[in-house]
Amino acid sequence: MSKKIITISREFGSGGKYIGILVAKKLGIPFYDKDIIEKIAEESGFVDEFIKRVSEYAPSKSIFAYSFIGRNAAGESIEDKIFAIQKRVISELAEKGPCVIVGRSADYILKDKFDTLNVFIYADMKEKIKRTMSFKGVNQKQAEKLIKETDKKRSINYKYYTGQDWGERTNYMLMLNSTELGVEKTADFIAEIYKKETEKE
Amino acid sequence: MSKKIITISREFGSGGKYIGILVAKKLGIPFYDKDIIEKIAEESGFVDEFIKRVSEYAPSKSIFAYSFIGRNAAGESIEDKIFAIQKRVISELAEKGPCVIVGRSADYILKDKFDTLNVFIYADMKEKIKRTMSFKGVNQKQAEKLIKETDKKRSINYKYYTGQDWGERTNYMLMLNSTELGVEKTADFIAEIYKKETEKE
Repeated sequence: MSKKIITISREFGSGGKYIGILVAKKLGIPFYDKDIIEKIAEESGFVDEFIKRVSEYAPSKSIFAYSFIGRNAAGESIEDKIFAIQKRVISELAEKGPCVIVGRSADYILKDKFDTLNVFIYADMKEKIKRTMSFKGVNQKQAEKLIKETDKKRSINYKYYTGQDWGERTNYMLMLNSTELGVEKTADFIAEIYKKETEKE
Repeated sequence: MSKKIITISREFGSGGKYIGILVAKKLGIPFYDKDIIEKIAEESGFVDEFIKRVSEYAPSKSIFAYSFIGRNAAGESIEDKIFAIQKRVISELAEKGPCVIVGRSADYILKDKFDTLNVFIYADMKEKIKRTMSFKGVNQKQAEKLIKETDKKRSINYKYYTGQDWGERTNYMLMLNSTELGVEKTADFIAEIYKKETEKE
């Protein structure tokens, strides 16, 4: 069986994560997102004492929630350490075989060593606001702010660690607006492309 | 039957025109590209005396080949006149029923009045060069120059007449890299999306 990995990058509120779950289910392959990758990083022992120590003084429990709050003796920021960790976790997951990975710059991390199908999911702002209000329990104004700020952060983070532009077509094989088709059909569609791609081999 | 129109915008050398022809064939609907639209414009009498007169002194026979070489009494450039003509021709073609239209800012021209499926086709530079060398009989350097210049012109022209950014995802429902799938499968794929979209109605 091919080692083809599906990576999904997505605008906040576009339904990209749920689409990823559906695609994995349709293809019978594992699904990994940010939370799962964080958990594996913690359990695997990849998270070292430096990060654990800083975490104790941080407001959130998540090891990925800090913003440039410190550097170790080697001059690495928390973010640098975290990127190195997620790189290792993602590569090890990909090594196991076909899977769907949402976010975490997986498209870039895997591009030289694995056969990847890189997908970018976006949506109309109206639809993203509706979805965010419903899933996060916030009002319209808060939803719009959350969408813009999250995507801005994703864009800056992606640029910093990959040197590439987030959402720029050359990084993806397929970019889809989920609004018109809906999440179910969008997922069908990605699963079909994946099957067609693997047929070739 | 739905009036859904497929518009295809494409990078030069990406195979977008051929993909458009295949999609139209698979769906049994008409295909229109630049050359066909120009011909209809000429035959329909939309091309007025002003443009015909200027054409006589121009190096190419095509009515679409001039670069800001003159303005009429109303202050309109040749390009402005041409954009107005292609707008009329494209709207009239769309009015007739489902079809595939490649290029000519059709996505923008039709967006408020018609139900459109807007697709953007791109490809890896290596593949675009190969295709351009083969179809235009030019060498590698010439091909690369032609690709870059053509897309630059398309981008400037699109921005000028639509106020939108060419290749920016918000303008399209679907953006596809034709290199990995190949033109045949890419066309299959667009035809399938079209069918799924029309199923909804």
